[in-house]
Amino acid sequence: MAEDIENIQFELTDDLVKQVENLIKINDDDGLNQLLADFHYADIAEILDELNLDEAMYVIKLLDSETTSDILMELNEDNREKVLRNLSAKEIAEEIQELDTDDAADIIAELPEERQLEVISNIQDEEHKAEIKELLAYHEDTAGGLMAKELVKVYETWTVGGCLRRIRVQAKDVTRVHSIYVVNKQNKLIGRLSLKDLIVAKSDQKISDIYITSVDSVNVHDDAIDVVRVMQKYDLEAIPVIDDNQKLLGRITIDDIVDVMKEEAEKDYQLAAGITSDVEADDSIFELTKARLPWLLIGMFGGIGAASIINGFSDAMVKYPELMLFIPLIQATAGNVGVQSSAIVVQGLANDTIDGKILQRLFKEFLLGLVNGLAIAFIVLLISHFIFKTTYYESLTICLALIAVIIMAATIGTFIPIFLDKRGIDPAVATGPFITTSNDVFGILTYFLIAKLILGF
Amino acid sequence: MAEDIENIQFELTDDLVKQVENLIKINDDDGLNQLLADFHYADIAEILDELNLDEAMYVIKLLDSETTSDILMELNEDNREKVLRNLSAKEIAEEIQELDTDDAADIIAELPEERQLEVISNIQDEEHKAEIKELLAYHEDTAGGLMAKELVKVYETWTVGGCLRRIRVQAKDVTRVHSIYVVNKQNKLIGRLSLKDLIVAKSDQKISDIYITSVDSVNVHDDAIDVVRVMQKYDLEAIPVIDDNQKLLGRITIDDIVDVMKEEAEKDYQLAAGITSDVEADDSIFELTKARLPWLLIGMFGGIGAASIINGFSDAMVKYPELMLFIPLIQATAGNVGVQSSAIVVQGLANDTIDGKILQRLFKEFLLGLVNGLAIAFIVLLISHFIFKTTYYESLTICLALIAVIIMAATIGTFIPIFLDKRGIDPAVATGPFITTSNDVFGILTYFLIAKLILGF
Repeated sequence: MAEDIENIQFELTDDLVKQVENLIKINDDDGLNQLLADFHYADIAEILDELNLDEAMYVIKLLDSETTSDILMELNEDNREKVLRNLSAKEIAEEIQELDTDDAADIIAELPEERQLEVISNIQDEEHKAEIKELLAYHEDTAGGLMAKELVKVYETWTVGGCLRRIRVQAKDVTRVHSIYVVNKQNKLIGRLSLKDLIVAKSDQKISDIYITSVDSVNVHDDAIDVVRVMQKYDLEAIPVIDDNQKLLGRITIDDIVDVMKEEAEKDYQLAAGITSDVEADDSIFELTKARLPWLLIGMFGGIGAASIINGFSDAMVKYPELMLFIPLIQATAGNVGVQSSAIVVQGLANDTIDGKILQRLFKEFLLGLVNGLAIAFIVLLISHFIFKTTYYESLTICLALIAVIIMAATIGTFIPIFLDKRGIDPAVATGPFITTSNDVFGILTYFLIAKLILGF
Repeated sequence: MAEDIENIQFELTDDLVKQVENLIKINDDDGLNQLLADFHYADIAEILDELNLDEAMYVIKLLDSETTSDILMELNEDNREKVLRNLSAKEIAEEIQELDTDDAADIIAELPEERQLEVISNIQDEEHKAEIKELLAYHEDTAGGLMAKELVKVYETWTVGGCLRRIRVQAKDVTRVHSIYVVNKQNKLIGRLSLKDLIVAKSDQKISDIYITSVDSVNVHDDAIDVVRVMQKYDLEAIPVIDDNQKLLGRITIDDIVDVMKEEAEKDYQLAAGITSDVEADDSIFELTKARLPWLLIGMFGGIGAASIINGFSDAMVKYPELMLFIPLIQATAGNVGVQSSAIVVQGLANDTIDGKILQRLFKEFLLGLVNGLAIAFIVLLISHFIFKTTYYESLTICLALIAVIIMAATIGTFIPIFLDKRGIDPAVATGPFITTSNDVFGILTYFLIAKLILGF
């Protein structure tokens, strides 16, 4: 079956899950092995995510550690935690033996602290152990936290022929050879080679004659986000990581970058939607509440603030009850404009398309708000006058308030993310409920102030 | 300078831009060439994005087409369009000659139709021309639209030694050799090899003896989004593209996938924020208005709808004016809950972590809404009673309405994206202003209906 060249079309069906559950129930190990042998480890992980813990443990104990280590990496985080809790330190160490250093370190970092030491002491391969320990020392949001120790490096003094021989040995530990890094005697990175260059060269040439001296690299303490930006901008598939003395420490490959990108995009999306921590639809009600309630409380206090403002203008309520009708309109418009402006700025900051000229940008948002405000206000003028029969002054109030609120929301929505960014705070937190709530409150206040000015109650 | 191994730290400074502008002004071609020689093409593109069109054209005409073709690909889309408009068909054809087929086809696809033919007819290399024409026939959102024709393929009948010789020739056209694809006489994909496998093998071995028979592939008509999902799930750095007869047509590399991912994430983020088309902070006020006004109009009609509802309950306004105070609270809560729920569902659908059990999911959101609703209602009860001195029945109305509105918003926010997804519509359109607006209107209606029920006006 694995010999067929097939379009990748794995589909996780209820039938398949049931089939696996049945094989487990009747302890048909051969049947299970045979069935699962056809699947990629990422597919098996998807199946395990559907099973209960006992069933998943059954499959994990059944398969060889080469496969299960890869499966572990692909499991949903919560399920992985449960599986790891059910494995002994020795068993985890065996899984880790099969993984690249970066994945191994990630798995260990997820364990409770006392278990970490126990697992590490159970790793047999001393070199692997030392490398993992080194990686664990770096913060996960830095280049060091992303890199793997596995790489192919050659010394500038070697010949092409000798190089190929040695690479055959080194390459066995490296899943994919992207670039071959050239170092000098002090292990300082001095250049790179591609396998292509190597096979195109003559066997007796020296590496120092053929290597490419320009090589991009990142420092081990660089921010992970900056590494993503650099690799994406320069279309790199791997980048070497060096320390402050240019010593070659490891390399980061694009698949790790893809994961970081995805996480960042999801985090920004969730922040904009008012969800704090990283939750998924599958999480428990408790976890979902924990992620959602804080923002709802912010919105609630905003609502209470708005209630106080309206209460403060209770004269207006009595004299001009029509004004009350348009509170939802003012509020919705303020919220929508604020979210739009902040989202554009947050994205511009993330893409580096926004330069520092804050006054110029605020002026542009002011103009933009004016254009949108005039358009909306004109339509509302017609509707309020003809449908709700508001007086001339009331209509004027509503329209001027709309224009003012749109301009205000657009500038607040622009200013806050830029301000946060300048203070070193992730501007993405300023989108969603935060902007909406502050604009709600300011919007309603503006509305009543303009009403008081024009109608004079 | 280019020989230094340096941490990638290109910074686009005003000074650098001014320096380039000055060199252009005094026509110092040598100075410009010398200055720009040190920069990566992606950095030069960043500089050109800051210049005016005449200056940018000056630099493009100055540099050789090998560099400028890469720069073109990295320019901001609007600027690229302007530059292309200022180049003759022959000049564009020269740039395209230097590009890989996928990039070449992308550039041509951006041109007006009559120019496309003119440019294509100016491409000298007949093979390159034919390949580009083939790629232009595929829809940009399919595997065919992403793939490049450049790849390294070997026939199963070749020997390892013969293979290495021929690969040396083929590989010259291929920027990065990820995998070597093995085909049979009919050009059908039958397996793959890595360069690593090839250098580890003996020279007289046959390819048919050493190749790996399992190879992932996608069909040329598969959706681009599915290709992204597959490459990400299986951690692939390149994937071959085949037609319905398993003939090898091209390959897709991970850097193209990274671009698609980024675009998708940005599109979803913008949809959630209520911005329709793909705009950037730098775009003109007209373009920004076009992207933002439609959603503001939706919000406006929602606001008018809310005004009609409140107007319909004008008795309540007279008898229980305190109810008006809490309109913003009800509305803000409904909007926030709706956005949260829809964002989680949209993300779950994108990640395939949501299965089809819609009733179960709605029940979960119901429970979640109940928990959040009770928490918020309790706090509001205290505040409304002690601060706003609402009567017992008014407080009860506000609290019950809050709970009902939260549950309703959570279920609407969950139902709509799932419904759209089932109908084949991108669920991401259902977040942001769309959900907020519908929840605003339903929320206020619910509020007054409950008030009528309890207070009976």
